Amino acid sequence: MGENCLFCGIAAGTIPSQRVAENERVIAFMDINPATPGHLLVIPRAHSTDLRDTAPEDLTAATLMAQSLITRVIDRLGADGANLLSCIGPDAWQSVFHTHLHVVPRYKNDPLQLPWSPTPGDSDAIADTAAKLR
Amino acid sequence: MGENCLFCGIAAGTIPSQRVAENERVIAFMDINPATPGHLLVIPRAHSTDLRDTAPEDLTAATLMAQSLITRVIDRLGADGANLLSCIGPDAWQSVFHTHLHVVPRYKNDPLQLPWSPTPGDSDAIADTAAKLR
Ligand SMILES: [Zn+2]
Ligand SMILES: [Zn+2]
Repeated sequence: MGENCLFCGIAAGTIPSQRVAENERVIAFMDINPATPGHLLVIPRAHSTDLRDTAPEDLTAATLMAQSLITRVIDRLGADGANLLSCIGPDAWQSVFHTHLHVVPRYKNDPLQLPWSPTPGDSDAIADTAAKLR
Repeated sequence: MGENCLFCGIAAGTIPSQRVAENERVIAFMDINPATPGHLLVIPRAHSTDLRDTAPEDLTAATLMAQSLITRVIDRLGADGANLLSCIGPDAWQSVFHTHLHVVPRYKNDPLQLPWSPTPGDSDAIADTAAKLR
């Protein structure tokens, strides 16, 4: 486990999160600073700093879970598309140094630009969205 | 093959590209409209419209190739990081409807914002960069 790593804490369950899906290798949960409604993160349970250091089996599992979640946000949230994004290094907008894939639902004419300004979402709305995605 | 599909043409070799890496499932080549120097695309040889429809084996192969290219742009181009990005649907900035992963090298204090305005890069510079990445 990475020392003081936020996402290791979420994987261990010592830090709360709204989990949406999980398997033996990876966990998907709601981003508490959503770039758009339904923004999810997929992380390997095993710590790695960024995607370069992730074991191939974990990266594969994360990608396949992201693929299924992309279909789900379109089917269940009425999203019109999605972006899959990973940031490798602080110069590429990475801010938590445990490998993660962003699944960002997209909505027709939404104003998303990257980098986005992380702003806390409404926690009840996030919980409701998580329930739809489970 | 997708009818009139640009990336199927690149995969078939009927449309020229600067290839950097390939295997039985996927091909990596330089984006001719680079968001930053060294911008690469990884595509499955088999046509699918977007990542939702990509066979798991192809998506896995594309992701693992992207992982190795991220290390390569940092090692060989002096990039300070990278973004992995895929756009699913026109409302998510997708403009070529054959599944592709972007590998976008990042440089300290580069001005990248997404969406970027696709602008043709210098073809000699792109060829030189491709040679460094092969
Ligand atoms: Zn961690
Ligand atoms: Zn195609």
